[in-house]
Amino acid sequence: MSGEFGESLGSVSGFFSANSVAVVGVSSTDEEGPGRAIFRNLLSGFSGKVFPVNPKAGEIEGRTCYPSVSAIPEEIGMVIVATPAAAVPSVIEDCAKKGVGHAVIISGGFSEIGNRDLENSLLALARKNSMRIIGPNCLGLYDAHRGMNAFFLPNYRIKAPKAGNVAFVSQSGAVAGGGLDWAASENIGISKIVSYGNKLDIDEVDMLEFLENDPQTKVIMLYIEGLRQGDRFIEVAKRVSRKKPIVAFKVGNSEKGARAVMSHTGSLAGDSKVYSGALRQAGIVQAETLEELFDFAKAFSLQQAGGRRVQIITSGGGFGVMATDALEKGGLSLAEMSRERRGALEAKFPSHCVVKNPIDLTGDADPGRYLLAIDAAIEDENVDAILVIFLFQLPKLSTEIVQMVAAADRKTDKPIVAVAIGSDFTHMHKIAIEASGTPVYDTPERAARVLKALSDFWGE
Amino acid sequence: MSGEFGESLGSVSGFFSANSVAVVGVSSTDEEGPGRAIFRNLLSGFSGKVFPVNPKAGEIEGRTCYPSVSAIPEEIGMVIVATPAAAVPSVIEDCAKKGVGHAVIISGGFSEIGNRDLENSLLALARKNSMRIIGPNCLGLYDAHRGMNAFFLPNYRIKAPKAGNVAFVSQSGAVAGGGLDWAASENIGISKIVSYGNKLDIDEVDMLEFLENDPQTKVIMLYIEGLRQGDRFIEVAKRVSRKKPIVAFKVGNSEKGARAVMSHTGSLAGDSKVYSGALRQAGIVQAETLEELFDFAKAFSLQQAGGRRVQIITSGGGFGVMATDALEKGGLSLAEMSRERRGALEAKFPSHCVVKNPIDLTGDADPGRYLLAIDAAIEDENVDAILVIFLFQLPKLSTEIVQMVAAADRKTDKPIVAVAIGSDFTHMHKIAIEASGTPVYDTPERAARVLKALSDFWGE
Repeated sequence: MSGEFGESLGSVSGFFSANSVAVVGVSSTDEEGPGRAIFRNLLSGFSGKVFPVNPKAGEIEGRTCYPSVSAIPEEIGMVIVATPAAAVPSVIEDCAKKGVGHAVIISGGFSEIGNRDLENSLLALARKNSMRIIGPNCLGLYDAHRGMNAFFLPNYRIKAPKAGNVAFVSQSGAVAGGGLDWAASENIGISKIVSYGNKLDIDEVDMLEFLENDPQTKVIMLYIEGLRQGDRFIEVAKRVSRKKPIVAFKVGNSEKGARAVMSHTGSLAGDSKVYSGALRQAGIVQAETLEELFDFAKAFSLQQAGGRRVQIITSGGGFGVMATDALEKGGLSLAEMSRERRGALEAKFPSHCVVKNPIDLTGDADPGRYLLAIDAAIEDENVDAILVIFLFQLPKLSTEIVQMVAAADRKTDKPIVAVAIGSDFTHMHKIAIEASGTPVYDTPERAARVLKALSDFWGE
Repeated sequence: MSGEFGESLGSVSGFFSANSVAVVGVSSTDEEGPGRAIFRNLLSGFSGKVFPVNPKAGEIEGRTCYPSVSAIPEEIGMVIVATPAAAVPSVIEDCAKKGVGHAVIISGGFSEIGNRDLENSLLALARKNSMRIIGPNCLGLYDAHRGMNAFFLPNYRIKAPKAGNVAFVSQSGAVAGGGLDWAASENIGISKIVSYGNKLDIDEVDMLEFLENDPQTKVIMLYIEGLRQGDRFIEVAKRVSRKKPIVAFKVGNSEKGARAVMSHTGSLAGDSKVYSGALRQAGIVQAETLEELFDFAKAFSLQQAGGRRVQIITSGGGFGVMATDALEKGGLSLAEMSRERRGALEAKFPSHCVVKNPIDLTGDADPGRYLLAIDAAIEDENVDAILVIFLFQLPKLSTEIVQMVAAADRKTDKPIVAVAIGSDFTHMHKIAIEASGTPVYDTPERAARVLKALSDFWGE
């Protein structure tokens, strides 16, 4: 695939297709050190070959250690460097000698603390040898489908999210690492995560171009502090967002926030209104909080449609009111099903049910009653989207609702977004419902914001 | 305590002090029916005596069944009625004969479906016999400290929250039931939950007056659709909120939301601006979403102070930026610690740490580094509140941080609010940190909104 994403430069895809990886800076003594943690994480799930490099050790974690990358008697597709900053240039030179085309530099101590010369010398080395670099000063790579966890975060501290179709590109390593763990908690399926740190070479534009054609990625989630090549980013994003949704959380929008961005990654946060307008023009869905970023990513990973007229279906009137308030506040509207269809539903329901919008199936609702309401909303041409609220605390909501929602969601293009508030029992059902493609949120307000995002992106 | 909360009427406290409870309408055949579920829930945790009433059964769940309340050969403090609506008046008359002073009427089928006469006749009966009534058409009572779960929601569907100091008063039964379960998930300690449905007798004003003097309740959480005696509510709330925080979520704020409220409980939602202004005047902290309601309740249950100038402490720069944006957006300000104190901190930290606001302890932060930063913020007179972000994914953040935060929080009146994003490992630490009094939230934005609420209520 080399050349596909830039004629003179090596491909970004090489980072994700390398079958043999060397980790440089694997300590034999510091078991919690970054190089050692990366090496251990790779051993535990990655199907390719992994080689530790440390001139002072013979064997680490039962594997033969090599004094240098060039001493490894096999071809190496990618190198991960976790040595002190001063040692990095010689490691890269050694990699070049070996013909390695891809390096991830975890090490900090470069431009972020003023060492611009050291960073520039690395770039010159990389360009001379057609080597692509992620980092320095980053968390690196995570590829769920290949079991490749090259983050230096200890396994026991993190729950791996399920492999899925959401790619996460984050300027911040902490947000990438915390996000990985949170994705598991939020039941979001991840394809790849990249934290690119000082973006000496690979930046958000390169990642967008790579993910544009990555078959395992259907949604691109971005955490941005600042953009280096703003115009180019907007141009590429405009193209990519026609193929797959891009959901972005741009921070540094307040005066003090912009200053904090400067202290953090040295990026210029820029004028928030200008940014927001440009991102919107590029077709990017913007999140206003970290929670929204993840909520939106989950919705786009599961639903491929949206629209303004929403039918609410609930078994608890209070939650229906909250959903109504939230939809109106978000600028969506309440669908009005045809009089005939409402009459037909009323005829099938007990008299204490309310067939308006919201439809209140009331506390004795069983799965069959939900199905009638959902089917009516699917069939009615005045409905674009469905917000359905489940209360798994109620005795008659048996588990068969899971298969019924799955079947309903399969037969319609209209987005179905669910709400289920509760604890373990509810959570179990939530996971089951999401497994068949309907996203579930804790509160009506979160679901309403998601429907707005789906409508903005997919609606007409 | 009779007479304390109203001369001619029985006390509200009787609902929460009754040691013998009769449940009327316990089916011997429908195991999922409301009466049966209530009876079973009471048997499983309540230390008082519980009697099933059903004229057609001899024994239910191994307990002798009585044909009527008056046939029970012991004194009865409270009756819970779950019969069909038409049977309720004769049950209440029988209770009056027996001298029962407190009845919770779960049964629906009254004013909410137009049966106002039936409901009015109940009220007349109750007043004549000095009986207090919760309901009808409600979920009823939950008292965590007495193990009294009189909700008809099956136990296996719900996780009981820990017993704590937050009372939840909800017009909606679904919100009360879902909220009970969610409180467990959100690690919120509950004292009492009351769902009062059609509020024939007991309403939010009665509950406020009772909770004002309830020693187990330190925070009052309200879900409101509409108020019957608005002026009286504001008057009482103004008094109560001087003693303990009241956190309220008022719904029906949009035009369609107000209509949904009418369909649900028949309440007049009223003009949202007028409402909001009146609640603010009464010293009530207003939540704008269900998530905020619970987030605020947790914060007030653990922290008794607030202020505008916030010091952010993080080990991930990105999360620090998010917190900065969110605080500024919420109208709080970033504290400026004295130059001397910042200098002293800088001297103790490695040079790659950033001692501004946010303080960025960076990815290799250990508990000791956090402690130095937290202590400095506690001691500095320019800091009113502390927002501290933990990333438990990072290898050096050992579990001893839990005790260190506990010790820090004990020695200061300044509120400490924490953020920890992640999955199981993080969740374990979050529970441990909250056990010693520091609330923890998933995202910086949620923590920032909480600090704003604390500042609004407790700040000068």
